[in-house]
Amino acid sequence: MPDPRFFEKRGPFRLQELATRSNGTLADSSQSDLSVEDVAPLEQAGPQDISFFDNKKYLGAFEATRAGACVVHPDFADRAPAGVALLLSHEPYKAYARIAQMYYPPSEAAAGVSPAAHIGDGVQLGGGCAIAPGAVVLDNAVVGRNTQIGPNAVVGENVELGADCRIGANVSLSHCLIGDRVTVHQGASIGQDGFGFAPDPAGHVKIPQLGRVLIGNDCEIGANTTIDRGSSQDTVIGDDCWIDNLIQIGHNVRLGRGCILAAQVGISGSTKIGDYAVMGGQAGISGHLTIGTGAQIGAQGGVLADIPAGAKVTGTPARPIQVHYRQLATLARMTKRKGERNE
Amino acid sequence: MPDPRFFEKRGPFRLQELATRSNGTLADSSQSDLSVEDVAPLEQAGPQDISFFDNKKYLGAFEATRAGACVVHPDFADRAPAGVALLLSHEPYKAYARIAQMYYPPSEAAAGVSPAAHIGDGVQLGGGCAIAPGAVVLDNAVVGRNTQIGPNAVVGENVELGADCRIGANVSLSHCLIGDRVTVHQGASIGQDGFGFAPDPAGHVKIPQLGRVLIGNDCEIGANTTIDRGSSQDTVIGDDCWIDNLIQIGHNVRLGRGCILAAQVGISGSTKIGDYAVMGGQAGISGHLTIGTGAQIGAQGGVLADIPAGAKVTGTPARPIQVHYRQLATLARMTKRKGERNE
Amino acid sequence: MPDPRFFEKRGPFRLQELATRSNGTLADSSQSDLSVEDVAPLEQAGPQDISFFDNKKYLGAFEATRAGACVVHPDFADRAPAGVALLLSHEPYKAYARIAQMYYPPSEAAAGVSPAAHIGDGVQLGGGCAIAPGAVVLDNAVVGRNTQIGPNAVVGENVELGADCRIGANVSLSHCLIGDRVTVHQGASIGQDGFGFAPDPAGHVKIPQLGRVLIGNDCEIGANTTIDRGSSQDTVIGDDCWIDNLIQIGHNVRLGRGCILAAQVGISGSTKIGDYAVMGGQAGISGHLTIGTGAQIGAQGGVLADIPAGAKVTGTPARPIQVHYRQLATLARMTKRKGERNE
Repeated sequence: MPDPRFFEKRGPFRLQELATRSNGTLADSSQSDLSVEDVAPLEQAGPQDISFFDNKKYLGAFEATRAGACVVHPDFADRAPAGVALLLSHEPYKAYARIAQMYYPPSEAAAGVSPAAHIGDGVQLGGGCAIAPGAVVLDNAVVGRNTQIGPNAVVGENVELGADCRIGANVSLSHCLIGDRVTVHQGASIGQDGFGFAPDPAGHVKIPQLGRVLIGNDCEIGANTTIDRGSSQDTVIGDDCWIDNLIQIGHNVRLGRGCILAAQVGISGSTKIGDYAVMGGQAGISGHLTIGTGAQIGAQGGVLADIPAGAKVTGTPARPIQVHYRQLATLARMTKRKGERNE
Repeated sequence: MPDPRFFEKRGPFRLQELATRSNGTLADSSQSDLSVEDVAPLEQAGPQDISFFDNKKYLGAFEATRAGACVVHPDFADRAPAGVALLLSHEPYKAYARIAQMYYPPSEAAAGVSPAAHIGDGVQLGGGCAIAPGAVVLDNAVVGRNTQIGPNAVVGENVELGADCRIGANVSLSHCLIGDRVTVHQGASIGQDGFGFAPDPAGHVKIPQLGRVLIGNDCEIGANTTIDRGSSQDTVIGDDCWIDNLIQIGHNVRLGRGCILAAQVGISGSTKIGDYAVMGGQAGISGHLTIGTGAQIGAQGGVLADIPAGAKVTGTPARPIQVHYRQLATLARMTKRKGERNE
Repeated sequence: MPDPRFFEKRGPFRLQELATRSNGTLADSSQSDLSVEDVAPLEQAGPQDISFFDNKKYLGAFEATRAGACVVHPDFADRAPAGVALLLSHEPYKAYARIAQMYYPPSEAAAGVSPAAHIGDGVQLGGGCAIAPGAVVLDNAVVGRNTQIGPNAVVGENVELGADCRIGANVSLSHCLIGDRVTVHQGASIGQDGFGFAPDPAGHVKIPQLGRVLIGNDCEIGANTTIDRGSSQDTVIGDDCWIDNLIQIGHNVRLGRGCILAAQVGISGSTKIGDYAVMGGQAGISGHLTIGTGAQIGAQGGVLADIPAGAKVTGTPARPIQVHYRQLATLARMTKRKGERNE
């Protein structure tokens, strides 16, 4: 059970309610009134909990679970232990996500401005805002309704935040316009100067960075991630992008809708990323490139040229995954042959 | 046009003024009195704007620009559309940088100490300093004239900052001495303990980190970058180094003058980097190495041995660029041959 | 000599005291009363200082040192210059660490709560705590005795910190329980949501992150490092782990005891790392893997599969070090042959 010091539980809910909200169906409709208290992983769940099974790696745990109810794909329904009420879904992980959100909706800070916060002149605060102790909201910033600004976070002058955003502790925001329902996790820095200068041994000459950062709706920005503002254009993050921790996004970069970037990714300046692109951890992309819709870049991949829509690439320089692995296999084979002769 | 909420524009300037300040010459001296209102990228510039052309990738945009004036290398002057006043320069990007600085000089915070800042005992503040709300300047720190300390930034005890520095929001400075005209962007951490200990299964034994961080003049330190203080020597950043976001610089590292480090670079302890060295994004260098003057290390390169002055290396372990690419070509060729026989 | 503005020196100590505390022995017991003023590197040490020799790269400096005393392995005692008092140890670096700690114990902030700190309701502060200006300690947090909370650091609601911890400036802590003698350096973010969601083109669906971060005793967490809290299990850092700067640790990761992670390492969700594992800088590990006790992963290595205990791997995908280097040698040889024919 989640630690009640940190997580406030709702519920219980009837199994039918869970099915309805998660677009699932009950394997046995006579169980619709079953009262379910909590969510839990397969191994820890008890008779009052609902769990889920989605990753075959955990099939053993599914077959042994003592959960009272379980979300599962219909193809695996017959692997469930007797007595587990089954909530069938073709997307069990997503269904479980919706169920877990019912029990544990995002925490709501009490509305109001802490007397230990600093609010500048001309700031507009929407109804229901919560401004934590130590937060600094500078002149003329706009904070949408129900948005939460965490302790010691900084919202720069004229920055605009939409409704229902959550800005974490020690976040720094400047020169940016942010949509609704955006979460920025602790320590992220958004809107600072990009890395723009004309190199010169007598002293590099800075290019004023005159763009902004525009972040759409429903985005998640990870802890200690950095997003530079544009140099002449804006840096743009499309709706529904999920950006993990310690990621670098350079000036003028444009991310389409729904992109997924794992931790420690780096994207150099002026590169454009199509909708629904996915980048594995520690991958990097050079500047001024175009990455097509739905392209996937493997972890630690290094992209030095445009990538077409739908391509799956990895390695440095990034190449199609099959090519990369065939090359690795060739090298392994050749090395082994050498080894057989020489050792 | 840059968003006036975030950027305050100066000007207009006469075209001859722009030429003089950027060391350029007018293609047509009769245009010296042309009044130029603003800077803009090629595609967005209108008749009252000046733009620049420097990257051949954008030649089409240059040939179609509606800018009133444009900075261009003499070799491309004849590609300009009719009616564009040309400011000729052998270094168009640098000339443009100087012009853009005329229109958009660095913003100046109003001098003074916010009542919401905390200033310790014995702090020395130079004339014209601006200390933002939430900033903490601890005992006996020295802040040079016209230096700006951002909201919720922390200047540790006895830290010294020169004149005209800009310290961003949520920056943490300790055990460091910083020169003049240094910018430290949001969230950077400078001066913490390096990673020094004697490994021991019974409990690793910490080595007290007894050096400082010395940063020269005219440096730029990126957002959320970390620079550890020295263990016995100092960690030293030479004048005019440009250090991008999320970079790690270990204890006792020494950077010469004018080095350029792209985002997410990591430099391990006690490595010495010569003047004007350049490192691409996500490159890493092992500890106790020497990198020569002007050496260039490609993005994601991993340096495991000394690099001579002027060398251009990439890959892991880093090798000369031509060698690296010949090796990749060999592997591609062998894999293809295998493929042709086997598939 | 360390800068006295930043480091407060204890001592002098008699040579015998130093030997006793560092488990060493004097080469010449008649020197036991030698008074030693300070520690210093070989090149800078003078007659009143003690230094150490451990890395053969610096043998020349050892042979030329003017130190009054030196810690050295018995095998190298005869390489010392005449007149240097020798403190013999089979682990000279560790012995030196203990000696340096005698001269420079961790600095102690004056106990007390700054009037410029914000302390929430129901907070428990142990005796001897030092809470710096701008620090925010939210409701019901528990801070152990003698623990220091740095300027503008944030301790979230219900967070628990043990005794003798040092929390740096601008650190953000939430949803975590931390042991005794843990140092968290400037700008680190601990306890934020992990990267958990069900991907969906119509809008990725967030999985509530319901675990905590548990950190053992005697850990060191680097500057601007990020540790996500668990999704259903906890994220666990074992006792005595040393975690460098800018490291990403995903949700549900478990580190055993005594692990050493160099800067910019990334560990994806739900991976388990055995005791005393070591990871070089910028290495990455995929999710849901098991890394055995004492395994070593080279810098920039990319681990895509389980690693057995004691294995030493590198490259991407990570393979045994000897295999990796033989493969590199094969490729170099083949490329050279081609080169000889073709150029």
